[in-house]
Amino acid sequence: MSLPRIAVDAMGGDEGVGVMVSGAALARRRHDRFKFLLVGDEERIKRALDSHPNMREASEILHCEDVVAGDEKPTQALRRAKTTSMGLAINAVKRGDAGAAVSAGNTGALMAMSKLALRTMPGIDRPALAALMPTLEDHDVIMLDLGANTECDARNLVQFAIMGAAYSRIVTGSDAPRVRLLNIGTEDTKGTESLQAAATRLREATGLALRFEGFVEADKINRGNVDVVVTDGFSGNIALKAIEGAARFVTDLLKDAFRSSVRSKIGFLISRPATELLRHHLDPNNHNGAVFLGLNGVVVKSHGSANAAGVANAVAVAARLLEEDLTHRIAADLAELGEDRLRDHGNGIVYK
Amino acid sequence: MSLPRIAVDAMGGDEGVGVMVSGAALARRRHDRFKFLLVGDEERIKRALDSHPNMREASEILHCEDVVAGDEKPTQALRRAKTTSMGLAINAVKRGDAGAAVSAGNTGALMAMSKLALRTMPGIDRPALAALMPTLEDHDVIMLDLGANTECDARNLVQFAIMGAAYSRIVTGSDAPRVRLLNIGTEDTKGTESLQAAATRLREATGLALRFEGFVEADKINRGNVDVVVTDGFSGNIALKAIEGAARFVTDLLKDAFRSSVRSKIGFLISRPATELLRHHLDPNNHNGAVFLGLNGVVVKSHGSANAAGVANAVAVAARLLEEDLTHRIAADLAELGEDRLRDHGNGIVYK
Repeated sequence: MSLPRIAVDAMGGDEGVGVMVSGAALARRRHDRFKFLLVGDEERIKRALDSHPNMREASEILHCEDVVAGDEKPTQALRRAKTTSMGLAINAVKRGDAGAAVSAGNTGALMAMSKLALRTMPGIDRPALAALMPTLEDHDVIMLDLGANTECDARNLVQFAIMGAAYSRIVTGSDAPRVRLLNIGTEDTKGTESLQAAATRLREATGLALRFEGFVEADKINRGNVDVVVTDGFSGNIALKAIEGAARFVTDLLKDAFRSSVRSKIGFLISRPATELLRHHLDPNNHNGAVFLGLNGVVVKSHGSANAAGVANAVAVAARLLEEDLTHRIAADLAELGEDRLRDHGNGIVYK
Repeated sequence: MSLPRIAVDAMGGDEGVGVMVSGAALARRRHDRFKFLLVGDEERIKRALDSHPNMREASEILHCEDVVAGDEKPTQALRRAKTTSMGLAINAVKRGDAGAAVSAGNTGALMAMSKLALRTMPGIDRPALAALMPTLEDHDVIMLDLGANTECDARNLVQFAIMGAAYSRIVTGSDAPRVRLLNIGTEDTKGTESLQAAATRLREATGLALRFEGFVEADKINRGNVDVVVTDGFSGNIALKAIEGAARFVTDLLKDAFRSSVRSKIGFLISRPATELLRHHLDPNNHNGAVFLGLNGVVVKSHGSANAAGVANAVAVAARLLEEDLTHRIAADLAELGEDRLRDHGNGIVYK
């Protein structure tokens, strides 16, 4: 099957052109159907391509020198949509010149530019940022929103649930992923009004390709018994970073402990395969590639400090979503929910 | 120095009378100035006391049979404030019959009962639940609110900062603990209006015994470079549970990894002192004892599944707060802020 090419913002991120091009090359070594539009400084991209002969006939370069800075305000970046590597990569998707865009640049700017260029799809009020996280089981969990929308109403949360489930069906192969709303307790009375209204709406909805199972608390996100965790962007960002921070905290403590005596050092050397397994399971590069769901086009955010393997994973995520036509899946589910029933009644609460 | 006695709700929690009494006895073995009012079923308490001769002259029993259930609604529990072990323990503090109450029972009920019986202290609109968490450094970090207040305005957050700093001064011995507001980014423009207004207020305040250092993201809570993390109860609860869950997730993965081969099993046995060190550092019992700050009296929540060592720590926290007179410290700081300046202007934003 032929796949639309993927526009890669070669200039975004902390690691620069080399890592972005190596990541694309790595993805292509796994699946040679990948084709790329590499957006950025032609000289530097060409130099990077020298070490990847497999990329020669698979990639075109779109030259530009301007780049969105990591700490730039989205409103400022928007003005340079036509000159920056990020803006041009997104624009390629808009023009149909590429099927998806991948960038490791400034998340807020990427969101703002994508929204403006690609527009939100019909039936969705706000796009959301979704990411995969490891679990104790052999499949990942999807969490959204992770920071695109600081405050969300019930209507947004219901739409996030539908988008997250469509994404999860692609990732897990399940017909009806288990969806839960992130809350501070599992009882019906817990949390904000928006959460309670969203829960009611999802509980009563029929015909959706998801299984709504109520609330989930933040300590259960990674246990493997939920496929999609739905939350507003503030709480989602807090939860995601708290999990990342705690995982790093524990592994740092473990390192210190292993260094604390000669005996422990020896034990560490012997059990190295075990700790390597742990390191591999937790390595963010293996779960790299957050997706902006709800746009008329696929945009994938690679972590700013991802290595080539991480970038390759982000590229693979973009390809997967193109192949499986995520956008149409979401549209079909929204139709099932009944778009008219989702009309906003002004108070953010969804009525049937 | 003589210390007011501590009322222990001997019936609350998952572990029952035995663990609560053993915990109190353990605390007393460390500091024999502790005296207790043990509230609960007299027969069972007496039986538990049999194995702790050091408790005999240090404790009085207040008999009652009724207990607040773990899943009981706070409003329902409130009606039984005069018959339940939790209600009677709090009431002993109100009457001056005890200096502090410790309970491992239902958190919502404990909060509701404490608020009704002890009332919020002057200058505080809402009490907050604060807990200690481990860091990479050799001191704990305090986070509040952890779930007592689902939604908070700027005024609440400023008050939480003052209360948390007063608590931190006792725990860390620092004159001016480093205080930060939990947010989804560190730039001034990030987060909700309440967060931004609270940051402005704290930045401009003079004379407070704290050092306000702006925002902190959830992945930096445990790094050891912040003493007090201030947040609304919803985000705080999400962050706390996400950290607990992720720590358990990583240690579970580590266990699996150690079991994955004979070599790893041998390595595990040899490096056991290292993993025991880690286990000790992360054991919630060693950080047990969350405090309701902002009441006219000291109420400490012990974790429902804490063991005797955990209960002893909760008792020690209560004793420490009595000794150091936390309530007066908070009152002094509120006076420094200028209570009139904290008057609510209706929109939740604090004006100077």
